[in-house]
Amino acid sequence: MNQSKGPRYAGIEAGGTKFVCMVAAGPDDVLAQTSFPTTCPKETLGKAIAFFKAHQSFAGLGIATFGPCDLDPQSPTYGRLFTSIKPGWKDADILGTFQKAFDVPMGIDTDVNAAALGEFTWGAGQGLEAVLYLTVGTGIGGGGVVNGRMIHGLMHPEMGHIRVPRISEDGSFAGICPYHGDCLQGLASGPAIKARWGKPADELPPDHPAWQMEASYLALAVNNYICTLSPNRVILGGGVMHQKHLFPLIRAQVKKLFNEYIPWPAILERIDETIVPPGLGDRAGVLGTIALARQTVEAG
Amino acid sequence: MNQSKGPRYAGIEAGGTKFVCMVAAGPDDVLAQTSFPTTCPKETLGKAIAFFKAHQSFAGLGIATFGPCDLDPQSPTYGRLFTSIKPGWKDADILGTFQKAFDVPMGIDTDVNAAALGEFTWGAGQGLEAVLYLTVGTGIGGGGVVNGRMIHGLMHPEMGHIRVPRISEDGSFAGICPYHGDCLQGLASGPAIKARWGKPADELPPDHPAWQMEASYLALAVNNYICTLSPNRVILGGGVMHQKHLFPLIRAQVKKLFNEYIPWPAILERIDETIVPPGLGDRAGVLGTIALARQTVEAG
Repeated sequence: MNQSKGPRYAGIEAGGTKFVCMVAAGPDDVLAQTSFPTTCPKETLGKAIAFFKAHQSFAGLGIATFGPCDLDPQSPTYGRLFTSIKPGWKDADILGTFQKAFDVPMGIDTDVNAAALGEFTWGAGQGLEAVLYLTVGTGIGGGGVVNGRMIHGLMHPEMGHIRVPRISEDGSFAGICPYHGDCLQGLASGPAIKARWGKPADELPPDHPAWQMEASYLALAVNNYICTLSPNRVILGGGVMHQKHLFPLIRAQVKKLFNEYIPWPAILERIDETIVPPGLGDRAGVLGTIALARQTVEAG
Repeated sequence: MNQSKGPRYAGIEAGGTKFVCMVAAGPDDVLAQTSFPTTCPKETLGKAIAFFKAHQSFAGLGIATFGPCDLDPQSPTYGRLFTSIKPGWKDADILGTFQKAFDVPMGIDTDVNAAALGEFTWGAGQGLEAVLYLTVGTGIGGGGVVNGRMIHGLMHPEMGHIRVPRISEDGSFAGICPYHGDCLQGLASGPAIKARWGKPADELPPDHPAWQMEASYLALAVNNYICTLSPNRVILGGGVMHQKHLFPLIRAQVKKLFNEYIPWPAILERIDETIVPPGLGDRAGVLGTIALARQTVEAG
């Protein structure tokens, strides 16, 4: 009954913990899906290729990758990881490996740009002029779609590495980012919560002071993103955001930071609709790769 | 000899201190230009109308306004100021006043979005995918052009109101933003420099510690903008940036903050080309209104 939904695409969400592969036309027409842990590049990319070989009938491939990855099509290292906190993945030729295996158009982008595209296409950001997607989990990363296109410019956003003011009760924690110490990721990622409080985030009860602090940091970040990119919608996903009680805390802090500076209804009256969880849930990233494959094929 | 340069447009840069009006086809074909102090709306808008009446032959009008201004074409208060720190300008109907006087297509945007468009069209950001323009003067404001279009989304950027960490030597200064205290504008605008050091910025010698602090705050902001919007070029204009010795200080601090996180040549090797003064100098804003008028006419 789904035969009228158009061509099928292959998509791969290459994360530092696991890979998710999908063949689909969209969220309601998924032909096949699999996932497996990220080990070494040869084994992991090999498994993905084997999966797609078993489902050869797709018009294009979209790749969303952890990184940082070289996304400049003019660069000799296009589609390779610059570096990686994951052992063995520095310089891994993600795109080239798939190009050797399949003769279809391919697009590659960051995991979060793809998730933003997925949400723009089928989720909480449908049809909006500017959509921002932030994941808060093992790391913090953000991507965006402006006027239907993912943000590139210089290269791609690195939203987890903005600097925000310290919460006064948090003066003694150094932050855990290996490059920047107390950038946002260093202060508010899942591992930062664990390092600060001595327990993983999902073992801290909702009334633990960790959550008010987490909300304060994320609100400072969201305030900065809104002031800079002016997104119609800010979508917060990732493992830490499974703690749904964070959403009202973050919204209240963003309103407080904004302080009625401008009478924008999106902040003052409808902030529940402006700062939201992903409409596609944890499938935002992998469905974003399907949208990326489609966009790549349609762009010719 | 300039007759072949195409249609002429009218542009008005409506600032809190002065208005600049221009009739031109581009930077090399300016038919007329004037400027006068911003007094009350009736007198100031009246002077602008009188100037343009004397040069009736233009195809469209671009307006760049101080604000914040309602830029939502669907809103009943489109083209009016929401509020203003300038007495008498709250609710001023900027766009409507010109619409009653002239029967040509009109576009209205923020002063800094227009400056970004001016730089994208004729200045330091020509043809780039993403261009960011920041003015540092009486206030701090930023605008951007992504894929040829000014940033709107929620409404427009308000880059001066991001929050950045305090410089350790600056713990006691409260900041002067009436809404946010120590947001970027509260810490690093011209009036903030004057409030902190007791002298206007242009009376402080280049070796005064004020400048290293100013560069540190602006570098934190530029780092955040780069991480969020990923612009190919960051253009820094406005009165405070007339202090050219700030540029090398800011570039050095941005590199330090980035800390070789990713081997992006635009940061590590060519930062002198990435963080730059306006190619159009102090004419970026008003020439941006000419570009805005042209874009409005061409969009039909």
